[in-house]
Amino acid sequence: MKINGVPYRTIWLADDQSTVEIIDQTKLPHEFRIEKLDSVFLAANAIKNMLIRGAPLIGAAAAYGMALGMKADPSDDNLEKCYDLLFSTRPTAVNLRWALDDLKSLLSGISPTDRRSAAYKRAADICNEDVEICSSIGDHGLLLLKEIYEKKNKTVNILTHCNAGWLATVDWGTALAPVYKAFNAGIELHVWVDETRPRNQGASLTAWELGQHGVSHTIIVDNAGGHLMQHGQVDIVITGTDRTTYTGDVCNKIGTYLKALAAKENNIPFYVGLPSPTIDWTVADGVKDIPIEERDQHEVNTMRGKAANGQIVDVQITPDTSLSKNFAFDVTPRHLITGLITERGISEPSAEGLRSLFPEYS
Amino acid sequence: MKINGVPYRTIWLADDQSTVEIIDQTKLPHEFRIEKLDSVFLAANAIKNMLIRGAPLIGAAAAYGMALGMKADPSDDNLEKCYDLLFSTRPTAVNLRWALDDLKSLLSGISPTDRRSAAYKRAADICNEDVEICSSIGDHGLLLLKEIYEKKNKTVNILTHCNAGWLATVDWGTALAPVYKAFNAGIELHVWVDETRPRNQGASLTAWELGQHGVSHTIIVDNAGGHLMQHGQVDIVITGTDRTTYTGDVCNKIGTYLKALAAKENNIPFYVGLPSPTIDWTVADGVKDIPIEERDQHEVNTMRGKAANGQIVDVQITPDTSLSKNFAFDVTPRHLITGLITERGISEPSAEGLRSLFPEYS
Repeated sequence: MKINGVPYRTIWLADDQSTVEIIDQTKLPHEFRIEKLDSVFLAANAIKNMLIRGAPLIGAAAAYGMALGMKADPSDDNLEKCYDLLFSTRPTAVNLRWALDDLKSLLSGISPTDRRSAAYKRAADICNEDVEICSSIGDHGLLLLKEIYEKKNKTVNILTHCNAGWLATVDWGTALAPVYKAFNAGIELHVWVDETRPRNQGASLTAWELGQHGVSHTIIVDNAGGHLMQHGQVDIVITGTDRTTYTGDVCNKIGTYLKALAAKENNIPFYVGLPSPTIDWTVADGVKDIPIEERDQHEVNTMRGKAANGQIVDVQITPDTSLSKNFAFDVTPRHLITGLITERGISEPSAEGLRSLFPEYS
Repeated sequence: MKINGVPYRTIWLADDQSTVEIIDQTKLPHEFRIEKLDSVFLAANAIKNMLIRGAPLIGAAAAYGMALGMKADPSDDNLEKCYDLLFSTRPTAVNLRWALDDLKSLLSGISPTDRRSAAYKRAADICNEDVEICSSIGDHGLLLLKEIYEKKNKTVNILTHCNAGWLATVDWGTALAPVYKAFNAGIELHVWVDETRPRNQGASLTAWELGQHGVSHTIIVDNAGGHLMQHGQVDIVITGTDRTTYTGDVCNKIGTYLKALAAKENNIPFYVGLPSPTIDWTVADGVKDIPIEERDQHEVNTMRGKAANGQIVDVQITPDTSLSKNFAFDVTPRHLITGLITERGISEPSAEGLRSLFPEYS
């Protein structure tokens, strides 16, 4: 997608074909800064300190981290060390483990002298595969937006939560891929962007990436979506997902569930952009069986922003003596979901629906 | 209620029986500062700049503003001027107009020499009447909490949104009056405090006042309530209301509707603390007929808090080029509400229910 009119991915190989470059997302939306990663240590740091985030992008960065490690030292010993270092950055991220296992298995089977080029190639492939998945999600979701547009003949209003845009992937995004495809196809649309407390990925990342690509959007507090839906201001809700049960329950950023309830109450279609690697084929009941990560209360107690002097500062917004709790995700049960937009097409949120698209898991 | 163990109201007459004192709520939760108001101008400033807020408290402050005006100059001319000055501070506040009309009608009918003492007396009466209303709401709501406690025999978990505590009234609060009454009666309870973006009255005011009175509480982002209800962590929701239709629809702080939806979905009782002056006996359909105030987008784009150096600063949390919208309230339709806790008892959310408690409006 575009930044200042120039197409970018979130991670790419520099002209020297060796250094990896990323957008430092911790500086957004206030500063657009490209960071150069020329060692596995810098790659690990970028994942750990969330310069990049989003499951698909974490996987891609981990793969390139292995390549950077092999460039410095392709020995068996260093292969293990790089794996461990990168795995320790965000141990609960499913895509991180998947990418690292994939690289390790590939590299273990070949001689050290071949590892550098093989690792770079596989990392590039992982990136391209992710772009293809997201692009396909976009193509399928585009049809939904087109249908609404043709029926309504006026601007299509989409509400989204958190950031499931291209900044969370290598390109296109998941929830936002249909939006970009529709925008590029000339469909008039406008996105309501939930700010998404506590980490504010909506206000800082989604709003920024939509704005850079030229997509009309408006930031709202997380409290506002119900009111908008009640008053016909939302035509469709599309969110991402961190983990989806094979039965169609969606575990996504905290607050997704509340928007799904409001959509149901107001007969507004609620869709989820779902790359198939996030389907958990072992879990049937998302509410009961998906453990919800609790993060540090610091994220609730403070807010990061730009002060009047231009400096980025954290401010405390709660009393010194009050405690907070910080639940990172919630589960939206399948009965609130209209459909799952996968790279193979749109499925109803059910085991039958998902298995018919992914028969290899039946 | 108590601050550092000492009982306070939000507005009171100083020992000199002439100066009015208030808690400057713009400094909370970071600083507890008492402000002295010894002129109508300072009273008007306190209302306009939201040193005090909350419908009942605004009414009380306006009444004392008139008294301060009469102290300086009890002439007919100044009576008009004080009325106009105070009315201009927050022209849409229903209680402001009500209190000012009440004082003006009283003072117009008596000689200038009697106005000062009459105005002070009426202002004190308005404060005491508000305390009585809130205290009665507390007594009725206490029974609900007691019933849950006796059945559950464990800590009662209450979720509340925004600040409908004693800081929004003269004492006790509306939504929180039952909580304070129950706490004082020895019932074990814990309050989930929605931070309530964009103005964060939950994190800054509700958390502070609960903490000062010693009530166990935890701050959560507005996104988290649905997840908590889904997992049995909430026994009852109690919110305030800014305006209630005689049919039982509740217009309250933006986001209330989403919590009501989650409560309904999870079979959790949803109650509203409702002082009868906020009932609008002319409006039947809250969703259709209550206009929703849109406030400046600055409140969405920025957050106020305490920087590392202790200074209170505003930080910008959105991209420079993105627009926001700031809807201040939403309407919760009566079918999502379990009951309305009024000063005369608990009513079902219906015209029949409210009219049976307030037959004088039938």
